[in-house]
This record gives sequence, C-alpha cells and structure tokens, in this order.
Amino acid sequence: MIMLESPPVLTIAGSDSSGGAGIQADLKTFTVHGCYGASVTTALTAQNTTGVQAVYGVPPDFVKQQINSVLDDIDIKAIKTGMLFNAENTKIVAQVLKRHFDTKGHIPLVCDPVCVSTSGHTLLHPDAVDTIIDELFPISDLITPNKAEAELLLKQRNFPSRIANLQDMVNAARQLKTLGPQAVLLKGGHFVASLADLANVSSDDTQVIRDDLLDENTNILRVHGRKEQHVDSLVVDVLCASDNHITIFARTRVQSTSTHGTGCTLSAALVSQLARGIPLGEAVRLAAAYTHIGIETAIPIGSGFGPLNHIHSITPQLVSPRTKTNPYPLTSSLIRSSRVIWKEYIRHEFVVLLGKGTLPKENFIHFIKQDYLYLKYYARAYALLAAKSHAYAPISAAIDVVFSIVQESSMHMGYCAEWGITEDELINTSESPALTAYGAFLIDTGMQGDPMKLVVALAACLLGYGEVGLWLKEEARAPDSWVKWEGNPYLKWMEDYSGDVYQKAVKAGLETLESRAEADAPSPIRFADWQNVWERCTRLEKGFWDMAMNLEV
Amino acid sequence: MIMLESPPVLTIAGSDSSGGAGIQADLKTFTVHGCYGASVTTALTAQNTTGVQAVYGVPPDFVKQQINSVLDDIDIKAIKTGMLFNAENTKIVAQVLKRHFDTKGHIPLVCDPVCVSTSGHTLLHPDAVDTIIDELFPISDLITPNKAEAELLLKQRNFPSRIANLQDMVNAARQLKTLGPQAVLLKGGHFVASLADLANVSSDDTQVIRDDLLDENTNILRVHGRKEQHVDSLVVDVLCASDNHITIFARTRVQSTSTHGTGCTLSAALVSQLARGIPLGEAVRLAAAYTHIGIETAIPIGSGFGPLNHIHSITPQLVSPRTKTNPYPLTSSLIRSSRVIWKEYIRHEFVVLLGKGTLPKENFIHFIKQDYLYLKYYARAYALLAAKSHAYAPISAAIDVVFSIVQESSMHMGYCAEWGITEDELINTSESPALTAYGAFLIDTGMQGDPMKLVVALAACLLGYGEVGLWLKEEARAPDSWVKWEGNPYLKWMEDYSGDVYQKAVKAGLETLESRAEADAPSPIRFADWQNVWERCTRLEKGFWDMAMNLEV
Repeated sequence: MIMLESPPVLTIAGSDSSGGAGIQADLKTFTVHGCYGASVTTALTAQNTTGVQAVYGVPPDFVKQQINSVLDDIDIKAIKTGMLFNAENTKIVAQVLKRHFDTKGHIPLVCDPVCVSTSGHTLLHPDAVDTIIDELFPISDLITPNKAEAELLLKQRNFPSRIANLQDMVNAARQLKTLGPQAVLLKGGHFVASLADLANVSSDDTQVIRDDLLDENTNILRVHGRKEQHVDSLVVDVLCASDNHITIFARTRVQSTSTHGTGCTLSAALVSQLARGIPLGEAVRLAAAYTHIGIETAIPIGSGFGPLNHIHSITPQLVSPRTKTNPYPLTSSLIRSSRVIWKEYIRHEFVVLLGKGTLPKENFIHFIKQDYLYLKYYARAYALLAAKSHAYAPISAAIDVVFSIVQESSMHMGYCAEWGITEDELINTSESPALTAYGAFLIDTGMQGDPMKLVVALAACLLGYGEVGLWLKEEARAPDSWVKWEGNPYLKWMEDYSGDVYQKAVKAGLETLESRAEADAPSPIRFADWQNVWERCTRLEKGFWDMAMNLEV
Repeated sequence: MIMLESPPVLTIAGSDSSGGAGIQADLKTFTVHGCYGASVTTALTAQNTTGVQAVYGVPPDFVKQQINSVLDDIDIKAIKTGMLFNAENTKIVAQVLKRHFDTKGHIPLVCDPVCVSTSGHTLLHPDAVDTIIDELFPISDLITPNKAEAELLLKQRNFPSRIANLQDMVNAARQLKTLGPQAVLLKGGHFVASLADLANVSSDDTQVIRDDLLDENTNILRVHGRKEQHVDSLVVDVLCASDNHITIFARTRVQSTSTHGTGCTLSAALVSQLARGIPLGEAVRLAAAYTHIGIETAIPIGSGFGPLNHIHSITPQLVSPRTKTNPYPLTSSLIRSSRVIWKEYIRHEFVVLLGKGTLPKENFIHFIKQDYLYLKYYARAYALLAAKSHAYAPISAAIDVVFSIVQESSMHMGYCAEWGITEDELINTSESPALTAYGAFLIDTGMQGDPMKLVVALAACLLGYGEVGLWLKEEARAPDSWVKWEGNPYLKWMEDYSGDVYQKAVKAGLETLESRAEADAPSPIRFADWQNVWERCTRLEKGFWDMAMNLEV
C-alpha cells in the first residue's frame, strides 16, 4: 500500500494480551486499512477467549505522558477511545485531549464507551460512567455504544432505558445524542430485527441502508444464493447524525462465536475511514461491512469467544515496490525464478564462441537467416499488442517497435549480404522448428491473454539480447579477456546489442514491464502465469541458439 | 488473506505509544504477514520519534498472568521476546516459558536482546543482561542482537567485544552462540561493509547471500538501474546456525532516518516466517528484505527517527471473500456499481409490456429476429473464450454453451415460425445498429483482454435475462398483479427465462464469475475494467430493447 495515503490515527484503550480486542484489535484494523496506528494504553488485561483473568490499571499520569508523546510529535488525523478503566483515566484523557484540541484544533474523536466485555466482564468502574458523559461526550464526534452500554448510559441520566425493539433503538440513539456527542451509533449486535421492523420505523427523516441485504432486481443473487429465512434475521445499527437524521444499517445476522473484539474493531475501522475524510454515514457502512465479514470469515482461535478475522480485506503484494536499490523488482524476480535457464541462454556456447570470434561462419549465417524470419513474428506480435491496447500511448509505442523492426529488416538484409547471403536465399529460407515454436508461441500468448502477458513474452528476447551485449562488452574490458573485441568477425553484432540505440530500447522495455506491474499488481495466479511465460520464452531463446549450433532446419 | 493459514504468534515486549516499535511494530508486522498476533506487555513507554520520554515497568506477576492467559488458551506457533525491561521480568518470562515448554513441548523462540533504543535510550537494566544470558538464551532458537548489544553481551562474558569489521562480526556471532542459543543473527545495520569484505570472509563453511545485490547476468538491471557506487556500500547481517555454519546476508545500504523499530520489525517478521515452518536461513532472508523495503519506502512521520513502512507488502482485496450471507460478492458489487442502468435494463418498458401481455406483436417480432442474429455473436464469443482458455474444463464449458446456442437457434427458428416469421425472412434480417454494437463489442472485448474480461462481458446478458425472468415470475405471484401469466401471449418467453433450465445456466454463470474472481483477485485497474465492461454491456442490453420498442433497423 502507498504510505503517502497512510494517515496516522490513535487509539486510547486497554490492552488485550490475547490480541483479539483492545489496542491490539485497533492496531490490526488500522494496519489493514492502510493507516499508521499509534496507541495509548489505559489498562492492561490478562485475558483470552474464555474471559478476562486480570486487569491492571495504568496510572493517570502515565496515560497523560503517553498521549502527549504521541500528539506532540505525530500529526494524528483521528482518535478513538476504548476501555478507559476508571474515572481518573477517563478524566485525564478528556482533559489532555481538550487541551490539544484547544491549542492545535479539533481532531475527529470516536468514543467507544466500553463498559462491559463480550464475555460479560465489567471493564469500567461505575463511577466512571458519569465522567465519560460529562467530560468525553461533549468533545466526541461520535459515540458507539452497544445495547447494554446504551441502557447503562441512559439509566445513569434517568432516561427510559429499556431497549426491546428497533423503535426503542431509534429513540435511544436520539436520547443519547442529547448527552453531548455530535452523533450516536447504537450497535444492535445483541439483538434481532426483521424486515417488518425496518418497514415500520422508516419515515421521512429515517433512511434504511440494507447493506449486504439485496437491492431490488437482484433476485438471481437471492434465489441462487442464501436461504430465504436468513434474510429476515437482521442485525441493525442505528446512526443518529448531527442533524438528528436517522440512518439504519441492516444486514443479515451471522451465527458465530467469533465475536471477541467486535466493538473495538468496528470503531477502529470507523476511525480509519474518518481519518481519510470519508463522510460519517459511508464510514459507518464500510466499517460495519468490514466487521461483519471479519466475523463471518473467522476461524476458531482459543476455546471461547474467538477473535474475528482482521485480514480478510488485504492480500499479499507479490511484486515488491520499486525502490532506488531495486528499481526493477519484477524483472529481477522473473530472472531469479528462471535463474538456471536464463544463464544457459545468456552464456550459451553460441554467444561464447561469438565473443571469442571463433564461431564457425556457417552457424552464424544459419542464425541470422532464421533471425530474419523470427523478426517477422516479433513485428506481428507487437502489432497484436497495439491491437489489444486501449490508450494511444501504448498503441503508438507498440507500433514504433513494429516500424523499427520493418526498417531493421532491410538493414538485416544488407548485413546478410555482407555474409554472402542473397536476398532470394534469405526470403526463401524455410522456418526451423525452433523458430516456429518461438514465433508461434508469441502470437498464441498474445491471443490468449491481456496485453501485459504479451509484454512479458516479448521481454525475454529484448532484455536477453541486451544482457548478452552488455556481458560480452564487460568481459571484453578485463585484462587478457577471453572475449575478442577488436578484429572480431562478429564485432558489429556485439556493438549493435551493447550499443546505446539497442540499450535505450532495453531500458524502455524495463520501464514498460515495471510500470505496468506497479499499476496493475498481479494476483498469485497471474504472477505465476508471467513467470511461466517468461521462463518458456527463455527456453525458446536457448533453443534458438541450439538450433544455430546444430544447423537445424 | 486466508485465515486458515494464519498461525498465531506471540510477542513479549514493551509498548511503544508512538506505534513504530515494540509490540505495536510486532503486531503490525504479524498482521501483514498473515499471522494472528498476541502480545504480552513487559513495560509501557511514553515515547515518540524523538526519543523515550518515560518508561513504566509492568509488575512481574502481571507479566506472568498475561503469558499464561495467552499460552493456556491459544495454540501459539512461535514466540519472540523484545524489551523485557528488567531482571525480574526477564526471569519470570524465562521461567514461565520454560514451564510451558516442559509441559506442552517447545515452541520456536526468537530472543531480541533489546538493551538500547535506536535513539540511544537504555531499555534494559544492566543487571538484567546476565539474566537474559543465563535464563533466556538456553531456551532460545535464535537471538538477534545488533552491534551494540552484541558488544555488551560479549563484554559481560569477558570475550573480546570490539566489532570493527565483517570478520569481527563472524567471530562475534560464533562466540555469542557459545552463550547458549541455538543460533545467532548478528545485525550489521550500524555499520558499512564492502564487496571486498565479502570476498575476504568467504570460506567453505561461509555462504554469502547477496540478496538485493545483483546476481550474475543481470547487467541490464545494474547498468540501467542504480549507480555503481551504491553497490559497494553494504549492510550485512551474519547468521551463525545451529551447525555453526555462517551465512552472510548482504544488501545495498539505504540512507534513511526512518529506522525507528527496525530491530523489532525484523525479529517479528522472522517469527512470522518461522511460524509458517520456513527454514531459518530463508526466514532471515525474507525478514531482512521485508525490513529493508520498509525502511526504503517509509515516508516521514514525526520529527525524529520515523517508523518504517510496515504495509508495503500488502494490497487491498477489492472483491470481498465469498460468505454464506454474500456468496456472490463480485456480481453484487457489479450490479451495485451500475445500479441505475441495471434497473433501466431489467424493468425496461419492453419487459413491462411483455409481462402485461400488451406488448405490440410487431415489437416482439422485431426483437426475436434481432435476437436470432445476436445469438450468433454470442456463440462466437464463447468459442473465442474456449480458444483463449488453457485448461480442458473451461474449454469444454465454453464449447457446451456454443453447442446449446446452436441447438437453440433451430428452436428459435421454430418459435419465430409460430409468430409467422419465415426461415428466409429470419436469415435475411439485416442487423440493427444496436445489435451490431453489442455483438461486436463482445468480440472486441474478447480479443483485447484475458478470459475473465470476456466472462464479465458475457455475464450481463446471461444474468440480466435470468433476472427479468425471476422478476416477472415473482411479480406474477402477487395478488391482482400487473403481470399477466396465464394466457399471456408471451408466456413461453417468460417461462423459458424463469424456468429451471435457464436458471441452472444462470447459477453456473454466477459460479464461474465468482470462482474466477476469488482465484484471481483483481488489481484496482482490472476491477475498474470489469466494472466498465459490465456497465457497457448493461447499457447495450438496454439499447437492444430500445431498438425493439422503436423498431430500429
């Protein structure tokens, strides 16, 4: 992922040794969302999927020091608070954040009023509830209580607190907003709603987003997908926005015990979206979907309520980013993956004898005659690449190559003449099997796949001959080198492929390969396909020189 | 990423509030490596990129409780220790791990003997050094000191401790191994070696891996890539394996201030590889490469020594995983991204009038005549798909469709006859522009791209007609529905597309789309290409029905 798009975010919460909740869940969520995560620890827990075995509060002063260390140095784009443990820590967090907001401006703040763990363990001293409401809610852009926490908070302020149905949730969200926060997301994970419930509450100022539920005109997905009864067992989250507009997010309920850290994960995903400037409503939708899929794709870890899957939204980047020390990561990995055959191609007996100047003339003549025919395939393959391209730039780039090959062909003819090959003889040369195999493979590869697959196929020849040229030239530099440069009958050939004109084409070819791979990162299947095409072309190149050595026709 | 391949790993270390080092760096590294991370906190720090402002030790008993909570419940595959803070915590960690190893068997343990932070802050009480050596080294599979830590450890045991060159590093690694660990990785990040140094130390029991350095026969990469002088300024890590065999990992040095947390990240990456069963040597190579790229691709965060980029090795997964509640994530996102035009296609006036049974006969006749010609393109496009496929299964699947279309064409002819269209008239029907546009677009799309692009193009017709069929059938069920089923002149048409035979093909089409997308995850560019192709085909379908309504020829 591109670090430039990696906004720093901060979580202020408890630590979960088992890694499924708390700052651990937050940091994992920030990371897969491409955010840079910092964390302030308010309390340590010794816990696992079966429950919380022990809690150790961090002294308020040290909580304060951690927050200052982060906010004094790092340009944090959004903050979430989770388990704050007690009134003292809650107070200090609110005070320190207020001070930073006053001096440096407000930072989007999401308050997850964690009071009770999924496993039922109390995570917040009761006397801290008032502090959260009085100190933290007023500076929060959003609070994200679950049903139990909402009831606790409302009770604390003598509101009717029982939440038994969707209408209660809507009312509760509105009441909670009067406690100070800019907006309220009341999570319905602990209870079941139906499509009928959705219909009942919908009104002018209420919008329903049936996220993973099916839109109109997707009967094919419903009929061929899930069982009907699923669709009517819903999880609903209720958002009361700053303008008091209500949005209800509904999705199909999932039966799962992998719910450890669900609340932390949701608010962490929310913060990641807000840090990118995503509007609140869309941020909630994305965060809820991320969390939902995390629950549904989790595999059991531990013997109790396991963590959800935090990494379902990422996949490995198979081609390393281009850097100063490795500007051609794709090419070097392709060469590496076909290391042995690549060396047999570059250091082929034909090349060595040519470098020594002792290559029999008949082998060279046989080679350049077949090479003349090969260039026809090569030109056609580039024409095919142009035909498969969408933009003018790649079309013209490909056609330029075709054009220069066509030109080269006449030079080639003149070159052959110097070796006593008549135009007639050259044109009437019949294709050797090695040539047909290689040429036809290029065309077939071009027909089968996308343009990149053809670009990879075409690269083995372009880059290989460039490598041969540079290798011979470098070897020639060594004192009493085995390479004979001056006076070598094949000097022109060596000069051509080591020369600036050809090497300019090599560099352009490298750029094309790498920039395409960078813009269009391959999946494992595609990457394997590229490696396979590259490796086969390398073999076919070697076979081409075998053919020349054996005078195959 | 697939959670099934997500081995749980544990870090026992300090917490870095700024998120660049400590358990935060470890958890980020575990996550992008697809591992499930748990963490035991030995000490909290209030720090940032400018230094460590304060350290707060966690009581030994609570460290013990955290370790037990994790190891009693979670099947940890590999463990790393980082900053242990003091002798008491070091002792307790060693004791608790020993007990678990004795009862449950050994777990690969990497000990990063953190003593001094990159910014020079002492992170370990001196009296703890002996404890690390005496208690932790004997149960460690690998220790990963940097130069300063190696010198400190050797001095503690009265070895010659000055490390001035590569040979010193090799000797130091061997001596450190005599202190108890199975293997030693001595990190050379703090000093510069040269290619000459590499040549000097190489011997029978010493292997040099020039990782990002260039292999033989990659002159093209060197000449067209980095400046020569780079290549001779190297970072070397020295591994002394359990058999005392030395491996030297060399790579081009990078000038950077983004080195905060480098050591934590390297050992965390190592643990992630070991947890997967990767052999030590290869694990070191991969971990060093990951860390190196992280430094080189980092962008500045904070005003001091910034963190490295932990997320360079991952990319977002654009198509959600297939789940029970969303078995067709690609299809639903395609429909969603073209929601408006999709509805105009499915609920087209032509369809509505057909459902009511009031569609003028001439429009229907015009439609089925053009549809007959369309099916020819459709058959050809599937034949092209077969020609572009690599395996027998997709070849035969595509050809089956061609075959059934060819069969259908004769039925179609009979059907047309019922509407008074002679075979002559049908065959001599000229193509309407709307038909040519659609048909030729399918063929062109097939020529341009990989098989999946063609599969997407072909899906809009297959799935759309299936949706129309199901929609009409569903609407017909409603009491006094607008859809006339019995006695509708177009009943056969509605029955065909809502019937089992066609719906079976729809389900197969959904499976093909989704399984291909799942196996071959698209990059952003490819995904946008799919959305574009899908959306254009949806428009062309709508255009086809416009044509029928306007009797365009």
